[in-house]
Amino acid sequence: MEFTLSNLAELTHTEFKGDEHSLLTNIATLQDAVAGDISFVSNPKYKRQLESTQASAIILSAQLAEQYEGNALIAKDPYLTFAKVVRLFNPPNEQQASIHPSAVIDETATIAKHVTIAANVVIEKGVSIEDGAQIGAGCVIGDNSSIDKNTLLHANVTLYSDSQIGKNVIIHSGVVIGADGFGFVLQEDKSWYKILQVGNVVIGDDVEIGANTTIDRAALGSTKIAQGVKIDNQVIIGHNVQIDEHTIMPGGSLVAGSTHIGKRCQIGGGVAIAGHLEIADDVMITGRSMVTNSLKSAGVYSSGITTEENTKWRRNAARFRSLDKMAKQLNQLEKKLQDKENKHGE
Amino acid sequence: MEFTLSNLAELTHTEFKGDEHSLLTNIATLQDAVAGDISFVSNPKYKRQLESTQASAIILSAQLAEQYEGNALIAKDPYLTFAKVVRLFNPPNEQQASIHPSAVIDETATIAKHVTIAANVVIEKGVSIEDGAQIGAGCVIGDNSSIDKNTLLHANVTLYSDSQIGKNVIIHSGVVIGADGFGFVLQEDKSWYKILQVGNVVIGDDVEIGANTTIDRAALGSTKIAQGVKIDNQVIIGHNVQIDEHTIMPGGSLVAGSTHIGKRCQIGGGVAIAGHLEIADDVMITGRSMVTNSLKSAGVYSSGITTEENTKWRRNAARFRSLDKMAKQLNQLEKKLQDKENKHGE
Amino acid sequence: MEFTLSNLAELTHTEFKGDEHSLLTNIATLQDAVAGDISFVSNPKYKRQLESTQASAIILSAQLAEQYEGNALIAKDPYLTFAKVVRLFNPPNEQQASIHPSAVIDETATIAKHVTIAANVVIEKGVSIEDGAQIGAGCVIGDNSSIDKNTLLHANVTLYSDSQIGKNVIIHSGVVIGADGFGFVLQEDKSWYKILQVGNVVIGDDVEIGANTTIDRAALGSTKIAQGVKIDNQVIIGHNVQIDEHTIMPGGSLVAGSTHIGKRCQIGGGVAIAGHLEIADDVMITGRSMVTNSLKSAGVYSSGITTEENTKWRRNAARFRSLDKMAKQLNQLEKKLQDKENKHGE
Repeated sequence: MEFTLSNLAELTHTEFKGDEHSLLTNIATLQDAVAGDISFVSNPKYKRQLESTQASAIILSAQLAEQYEGNALIAKDPYLTFAKVVRLFNPPNEQQASIHPSAVIDETATIAKHVTIAANVVIEKGVSIEDGAQIGAGCVIGDNSSIDKNTLLHANVTLYSDSQIGKNVIIHSGVVIGADGFGFVLQEDKSWYKILQVGNVVIGDDVEIGANTTIDRAALGSTKIAQGVKIDNQVIIGHNVQIDEHTIMPGGSLVAGSTHIGKRCQIGGGVAIAGHLEIADDVMITGRSMVTNSLKSAGVYSSGITTEENTKWRRNAARFRSLDKMAKQLNQLEKKLQDKENKHGE
Repeated sequence: MEFTLSNLAELTHTEFKGDEHSLLTNIATLQDAVAGDISFVSNPKYKRQLESTQASAIILSAQLAEQYEGNALIAKDPYLTFAKVVRLFNPPNEQQASIHPSAVIDETATIAKHVTIAANVVIEKGVSIEDGAQIGAGCVIGDNSSIDKNTLLHANVTLYSDSQIGKNVIIHSGVVIGADGFGFVLQEDKSWYKILQVGNVVIGDDVEIGANTTIDRAALGSTKIAQGVKIDNQVIIGHNVQIDEHTIMPGGSLVAGSTHIGKRCQIGGGVAIAGHLEIADDVMITGRSMVTNSLKSAGVYSSGITTEENTKWRRNAARFRSLDKMAKQLNQLEKKLQDKENKHGE
Repeated sequence: MEFTLSNLAELTHTEFKGDEHSLLTNIATLQDAVAGDISFVSNPKYKRQLESTQASAIILSAQLAEQYEGNALIAKDPYLTFAKVVRLFNPPNEQQASIHPSAVIDETATIAKHVTIAANVVIEKGVSIEDGAQIGAGCVIGDNSSIDKNTLLHANVTLYSDSQIGKNVIIHSGVVIGADGFGFVLQEDKSWYKILQVGNVVIGDDVEIGANTTIDRAALGSTKIAQGVKIDNQVIIGHNVQIDEHTIMPGGSLVAGSTHIGKRCQIGGGVAIAGHLEIADDVMITGRSMVTNSLKSAGVYSSGITTEENTKWRRNAARFRSLDKMAKQLNQLEKKLQDKENKHGE
């Protein structure tokens, strides 16, 4: 693909400055760019790299563009314009509708006309797959699951029975949707009685789910991931969890059973959220936090201890175990000093 | 399926009150129940929902039943009775013994008569599979592994060679059993020399293993998961770990190599346990704890910091780095005050 | 396999003492060893087990060998010698080059002569696989990926398009290499615009990657794992991460996007490292640490709180939330006492 600077401006609804005929053949970071590449600065702290970059044009804010002499696209949100330019240089492959002969498809499944099914896919009873869907090699789609239009399953995804997947969803390799929730009752003999998990998972439109993430089916009812939610790799979502629109969950986060997370939340990587909690809309939780209580209003929340040099940490961590004692000691000292003052004051 | 109230009482060995002919066609939560459903209250804090539920009957403790006018099953352990009623409404599908023609089975494998093997399963040399076992689509069973009676492998499970799986085991999709333990020796040139992992994994009867969990083979000998252990999704179990009967490990927990966990332990979600430790029987560890020392007696153990509003947390977490200094400062102050008092006392 | 003691000494370049003809048929731990086995002591704290072991020979340091009467190999590094002896007793199976008829290989792929491809493997367009490579059952190798000499993919590995895998690499089951990095731009309507991830993953020679680990492709450019790096199970490596030679990352660790980890680092299990950081060469980070700032010099780093009895922990963790207040209170007390002294001193 190649575009002139003015082409790109037109296609991304931005202004440009410099040589309108400048021919751009790829997009790259400021450091890696070579002549013919367009690059971008979304964070002003990288602006010094502008001096040394080989890029033939830069996507910039109006403010930075004033300080830059070369060819530029002037964008309201340079990062968003960058994302749009990446797509222009990497248009989707035209996917031919086709079903690989090695795919094993139950005769009761309903497969729309314009569907791509790769090698060794297994599609079980009563499954329905709508137009534009692409099913990667080795995927297994359990009984009575449904996959809506233009949804993409990469290779080796597993959907258990009754999973409902919306439109324009992207599911990465190794994802398991609809496995049993972790539900057991402790019996008198100390063994565990399994609670059959007879609910399902419902995934809304425009959701993306990262590699090796697991989303368990509900015990009763549905585990629900709403429209526009973005989930990263190796996230753990327990049974009967509900995650509302446009919430984002980076890698390694964990949501235990029956917790409800509101809209537009930004959960950090590696965050663990206990079960049966309510997380309000527009909550942001920083990475690796441990959430054991409901967070009832929008805001930024955190927990955890940051890394320091090991010998210092050992001393501090040891003191943590006496923190309650220290607090009492401190209060007693204060009281003693106060008593003294009162006495002297008399 | 449908049952009368008196049927259900008989089948679950409970008492009932109300209309013995009341016809029940499904089980649902108090909120979701419609006419014809039975529901349950296992936690008294949800009893207020009893007023608004549409359920036609409720599973209750004797105590709550006294306060409830409608149809009820009166159970010693309502949660256990709920679990039993779920099974009554969801009887197992009769699984026809069958081997899908796309399965690739080595001629040296021993497959019992009443086994179900789904599409694209690969069974390698010397494997044995006993009656009642079900092997889901895409599973790969490595050389000389054995799967005992009535064990269920969901789709896309991988067993490495020599894995021994007991009776009535459930293994969810994406599980990997018997991959190499993480064993390397640092050489003088700072490269790592791999220790071949020549042991195996032995899984006892009645174990359940959640989606995408990994259990590594032993370096020498066996990694052992005892009878009745329940393991959730994305749990990491290192080489030569031993977990004893009826211990339960929710999602995202991690046990490093050679650690031994006793019987009936309840490990919380996201707990990390270092290697070469001993965890006694009947230990409970709350979610996200970090265990770096053996826990030698039964009890409840915890660690970690809970979430608070970010600006407060930043101040507190910064102070943590001076905790040892604070403790010393506090002790000096106390001493100074004491010295003063002693002086004044003279 | 069987070796005499003098054989083993010769093959491992060690000294021996005792009966040179002693016939050794296997290797086992001190506890599990039976007559005919060789065992080892790499950590002097286990030397007491020497008295009770049934092993017919022991791998020991010179120092311990002085205190031991039986047959011994005397090694400079007993643990390394143990690792070498394990290999002698477990020589690799001669792998016949073969392509299973169920494998689906695109006609544009280039497969060298001496390659083993197991059942149900899917190899897409333009892939190249070099001599000595083994591809386990159910693996899916995406468009234009390359796998260099003697590399082993266990069953059910997924490589996305354009992945480059070096020589002598071992990749365990369930690994996903090259899935999309987690990159989105927040739009004005609060929905997320996906940044196409058009980079790839490059894995150096001699790397090992544990089961169910995920390594994301770069947004632009490459995610790079250098020669000799060892990665354990369920590790999460974000887009554009770079990990340098001989660094080791145990299970459950997480590296967010664009972070650069130097050479010979030893990261602990369950460590989480935020994005866009620099970790210097030769850094060691203890298990479960949370790293939110660059670590600019070699050393040992830690964070976190260790486990204690729950009721004590509850009190200490509650006090953590007042730690900043405590510090201020302490400083005020100190000042007050100081002021008093100054006054009295006047």
